[in-house]
Amino acid sequence: MYELGVVYRNIQRAQKDVAANLGALGTATVHEAMGRVGLLKPYMRPIYAGARAHGTAVTVLLQPGDNWMLHVAAEQIQPGDIVIAGVTADCTDGYFGDLLATSFKARGAQGLVIDAGVRDVNVLADMQFPVWSKAISAKGTIKATLGSVNIPVVCAGALVNPGDVVVADEDGVVVVPAASAQKVLDKAAAREANEAEKRAKLAAGVLGLDMYRMREPLQEAGLRYID
Amino acid sequence: MYELGVVYRNIQRAQKDVAANLGALGTATVHEAMGRVGLLKPYMRPIYAGARAHGTAVTVLLQPGDNWMLHVAAEQIQPGDIVIAGVTADCTDGYFGDLLATSFKARGAQGLVIDAGVRDVNVLADMQFPVWSKAISAKGTIKATLGSVNIPVVCAGALVNPGDVVVADEDGVVVVPAASAQKVLDKAAAREANEAEKRAKLAAGVLGLDMYRMREPLQEAGLRYID
Amino acid sequence: MYELGVVYRNIQRAQKDVAANLGALGTATVHEAMGRVGLLKPYMRPIYAGARAHGTAVTVLLQPGDNWMLHVAAEQIQPGDIVIAGVTADCTDGYFGDLLATSFKARGAQGLVIDAGVRDVNVLADMQFPVWSKAISAKGTIKATLGSVNIPVVCAGALVNPGDVVVADEDGVVVVPAASAQKVLDKAAAREANEAEKRAKLAAGVLGLDMYRMREPLQEAGLRYID
Amino acid sequence: MYELGVVYRNIQRAQKDVAANLGALGTATVHEAMGRVGLLKPYMRPIYAGARAHGTAVTVLLQPGDNWMLHVAAEQIQPGDIVIAGVTADCTDGYFGDLLATSFKARGAQGLVIDAGVRDVNVLADMQFPVWSKAISAKGTIKATLGSVNIPVVCAGALVNPGDVVVADEDGVVVVPAASAQKVLDKAAAREANEAEKRAKLAAGVLGLDMYRMREPLQEAGLRYID
Amino acid sequence: MYELGVVYRNIQRAQKDVAANLGALGTATVHEAMGRVGLLKPYMRPIYAGARAHGTAVTVLLQPGDNWMLHVAAEQIQPGDIVIAGVTADCTDGYFGDLLATSFKARGAQGLVIDAGVRDVNVLADMQFPVWSKAISAKGTIKATLGSVNIPVVCAGALVNPGDVVVADEDGVVVVPAASAQKVLDKAAAREANEAEKRAKLAAGVLGLDMYRMREPLQEAGLRYID
Amino acid sequence: MYELGVVYRNIQRAQKDVAANLGALGTATVHEAMGRVGLLKPYMRPIYAGARAHGTAVTVLLQPGDNWMLHVAAEQIQPGDIVIAGVTADCTDGYFGDLLATSFKARGAQGLVIDAGVRDVNVLADMQFPVWSKAISAKGTIKATLGSVNIPVVCAGALVNPGDVVVADEDGVVVVPAASAQKVLDKAAAREANEAEKRAKLAAGVLGLDMYRMREPLQEAGLRYID
Repeated sequence: MYELGVVYRNIQRAQKDVAANLGALGTATVHEAMGRVGLLKPYMRPIYAGARAHGTAVTVLLQPGDNWMLHVAAEQIQPGDIVIAGVTADCTDGYFGDLLATSFKARGAQGLVIDAGVRDVNVLADMQFPVWSKAISAKGTIKATLGSVNIPVVCAGALVNPGDVVVADEDGVVVVPAASAQKVLDKAAAREANEAEKRAKLAAGVLGLDMYRMREPLQEAGLRYID
Repeated sequence: MYELGVVYRNIQRAQKDVAANLGALGTATVHEAMGRVGLLKPYMRPIYAGARAHGTAVTVLLQPGDNWMLHVAAEQIQPGDIVIAGVTADCTDGYFGDLLATSFKARGAQGLVIDAGVRDVNVLADMQFPVWSKAISAKGTIKATLGSVNIPVVCAGALVNPGDVVVADEDGVVVVPAASAQKVLDKAAAREANEAEKRAKLAAGVLGLDMYRMREPLQEAGLRYID
Repeated sequence: MYELGVVYRNIQRAQKDVAANLGALGTATVHEAMGRVGLLKPYMRPIYAGARAHGTAVTVLLQPGDNWMLHVAAEQIQPGDIVIAGVTADCTDGYFGDLLATSFKARGAQGLVIDAGVRDVNVLADMQFPVWSKAISAKGTIKATLGSVNIPVVCAGALVNPGDVVVADEDGVVVVPAASAQKVLDKAAAREANEAEKRAKLAAGVLGLDMYRMREPLQEAGLRYID
Repeated sequence: MYELGVVYRNIQRAQKDVAANLGALGTATVHEAMGRVGLLKPYMRPIYAGARAHGTAVTVLLQPGDNWMLHVAAEQIQPGDIVIAGVTADCTDGYFGDLLATSFKARGAQGLVIDAGVRDVNVLADMQFPVWSKAISAKGTIKATLGSVNIPVVCAGALVNPGDVVVADEDGVVVVPAASAQKVLDKAAAREANEAEKRAKLAAGVLGLDMYRMREPLQEAGLRYID
Repeated sequence: MYELGVVYRNIQRAQKDVAANLGALGTATVHEAMGRVGLLKPYMRPIYAGARAHGTAVTVLLQPGDNWMLHVAAEQIQPGDIVIAGVTADCTDGYFGDLLATSFKARGAQGLVIDAGVRDVNVLADMQFPVWSKAISAKGTIKATLGSVNIPVVCAGALVNPGDVVVADEDGVVVVPAASAQKVLDKAAAREANEAEKRAKLAAGVLGLDMYRMREPLQEAGLRYID
Repeated sequence: MYELGVVYRNIQRAQKDVAANLGALGTATVHEAMGRVGLLKPYMRPIYAGARAHGTAVTVLLQPGDNWMLHVAAEQIQPGDIVIAGVTADCTDGYFGDLLATSFKARGAQGLVIDAGVRDVNVLADMQFPVWSKAISAKGTIKATLGSVNIPVVCAGALVNPGDVVVADEDGVVVVPAASAQKVLDKAAAREANEAEKRAKLAAGVLGLDMYRMREPLQEAGLRYID
């Protein structure tokens, strides 16, 4: 059950350099390193091509059609944070536009991930303020009902705790718990390490069937070739 | 981040009588008493008319197209539990059918809530084993990848901890944290208490406008009547 | 543009007997008689099997997650009316439950058509108060923002004017303008008149190809039979 | 590429008794026996509870909003057939109602599977003429553009050849190629054979973990129990 | 009920300069000025990045899969118009491509808003002919059934009267009634007027909480800060 | 019924120059020339603007969440091929990323069409390796269950045989059977031939009503002009 009407001011943020390194590796690699969990649903899309961000989570719980708590959240942003917002019911309204983006940016936010809609997207693109949302809509919102800031929040099917690392790019958005961030980074980096070599082999025409030694397990599974 | 490959055997269940009383009040009343949070998304529907269940949550994290962990979960069921399962990616496959239902029922399960598909629904209806799912599908599943049992799980947009109270009926599914169950029950019961009186007034033709004293706030908000 | 914050008290209702006769013919026949316009989108479904209603429209414009205007609308209901509600943005919340249904019924309402969600559906079914909605959800709503009553409203893609005839059954919901109601009824009745004869022929094994004289136009269109 | 404007009159139907036996086993068992292929997408739902049908496929290719070819198909129906129809573009219109159902029934059709909408569903339920569709809609269709009858058709994601066995129940719709029908039946029957014994064991409280000998592979996969 | 088979030649268009000024303000600002009504559903998206248009509405009612009336509409276009089309049933076919765009452009059309699909989108982008649609599809359409031109039309959930101002950009599409256009423009311009000042303050780090004086109402609503 | 666990090595490919010429004409023209069949559903979208490809089909049947067969398919690719993949159940996982793209490209593949998700889309765009998919997702896949390569496959609602011509651009994806490719090309080229002339006329202000001689049939259909 969500705790409503509260703002936690002191949250334990993941280390900045770990977040940065995870961000550099990208969502696909990080997601693999986590054992294929922690990914938001794929309906979350960046509002402009090339969007890419990472940061420590300031979480927000919003009410449908009501963006009051985004204003409350702005004050809690520290440089390097990324704001990530869930809503208590499905809603596509435009909760966030150029004024809030100006404020968030001034506070040091690296971007916004919101399970709802946003607007002023051409201005946001010009500002290069990256946003992942489920909709784009000119519809504004009211300020009438409390949600919360920096409580654990479900956003697009994923649980986010305040301070978690959020990595977002054109492949989606992944959440790494603060406590596991270093371990996930190690795994992700190891995974990345031999990708260049693999890529070179594949580019030279070596087949994955051979490089990954798949022919035997495929045969055991019963694969038959027919000429 | 979900912890994968683990089964927690000792969970703190909410009190049975509290769960029973919440179940008797139904999802709409309980959801109101919680401050309008804790509800699963409305795409979760009962597989037969009149389905109604409540219990303490045995949580399951499933992999897409893989029902292995439902078999693992069966052993953890105690009489009065309700099984509630999330999946790491969207999937409509039929994870659950008459054999698993027979096993769950034998263990004392009160029902299943699953963010995926189920099958053998006519048999399940005959057994009166209530299920809430997002799909019905004859497609079976494999048993190849581990998930977990009794970890915190996101199901249809809601966070569920093992031992939480789950209330499900034709209006949907709501999750009440074990620690708040008694407090929510008190609020819900209070809410229910004067419903009979209200219903009688409304049936007699009294308007909600008058009963709830809405005329003044509506006028203040600027409502105009035009003849 | 919707006029907000107004309630029109005097509306021109279609004739009751015309509405009754249209209701008896059902949506499919009425929709054909209208030239195949006036139908709400097919995501509007009755909340229980066998639901069927007709009446003159009391229209409501709702705000997302806010059912205030349904209380306002209750006062405008006259016996034989059906309430039909649009929302200014997509919303699946449960706007309407057993208390409002009790009130609507006491005022003489024949049913509700709402482009949003409802709750207490098992009670509504027991009351035999028919509702067509796009969702069922236990989620309640607030009372904070004005909409309007008895203005022209778009509901599930169709324009409804107050006083129009609304016919609803298991095939969907169709709206007949008050001014055209008699003419549509005449056409619909004519259409229905020879259906019994057609049905008897088809039941006896006569083919539609012959009964509707389709063989020639099919041949002209180029249909080829291959043995 | 679909061949347009043709009707194949002589098709090779699967054996009736094989179709009947597959129908008795139901879609879930048949689908498993086929290696988990051949299932239509789960958005295809029966129009009334308890619907169940099987038969040999008369296939129809329809144009969007145009039911002309259903009339052409009626003539090709033989007792024991089931009509299965795809459309060249997504459409929810009501292609089929009580008159066509009367005609289809008179010809011996066992049901209809249509990747579009149908109407008169309360009459169809009274007639006990089972239909699986993706929508229910009062909207009628025109008769202007040719499709085809008894060509290979894609319906709800599955390829259907004329004469294939179609099995449909509340779990969905599965298509068995005529040439494989006997082999699939043998596998399905074998699968069904020991279900009663399994059910009895599970009902007695034996766990699937033990009955299916899953404990060892789960341990090998790394499952850990935490007390 | 839609009037079918008619073309209204003389429509009352909103003033061109008012339309131009509304267009310059953009959909989000205009939508706010209208009291948050008049917006088309957010599934309506521009076919290329940076699309932006405004004009006076030439309305079209289309039949599913049939673009005949777009040709009829072309003749009614005057320089400064924007064509806006609804369909009598959901359809994603490609109603409009480069030839029609060439014709519309030659007639002075500023763009197209269509609750259906379009094609030749790369050519349309090269032509810089802006289109908002719900789908992109290569599928062509027939010319068989009449709709209407310049009648009131529902497009993506919004009512449009011929001559209304249509403003469209990357945030969506909004419709302003001709009769209210000047009043809405005044409000929108007033709203815009102090945005620059607000933006500067927010960019300087002033919080919305202070600028909008939200702290007191938040406290009254019960917001608690926890350290 | 899909044949599982097989790879057909010798397939009959359509002629390369025919494929190239069809590709130059684009999907809209080719689809028209085919009589408006053969198009994949419009949810299939290119992952970057300007994507365009054509080739002969190497078909793949995938299991949900399992990309094993894409590795098997890589070996079957010949220069000029395009890989086209269906899945046995709906799935949005990221089956394909930069390593597989490197391999496919090295083998001469012209692109990928997949009824599921892909990842590393920014790298794929940099590589200019065109992909049409129904989703973008960072979620990886397992390698556990066999599908098939070069069997007839349903992809996004269309049947594809190995060796068929696949044409894909920003308007969608269309499949031309190898046996009909030359005939379809002839029709498509003829259709294209007089488009330039038509375009010039329309650009000069000639109306389609006159150019296509529509005024008379419109009048016969009953179109009325009202001043």
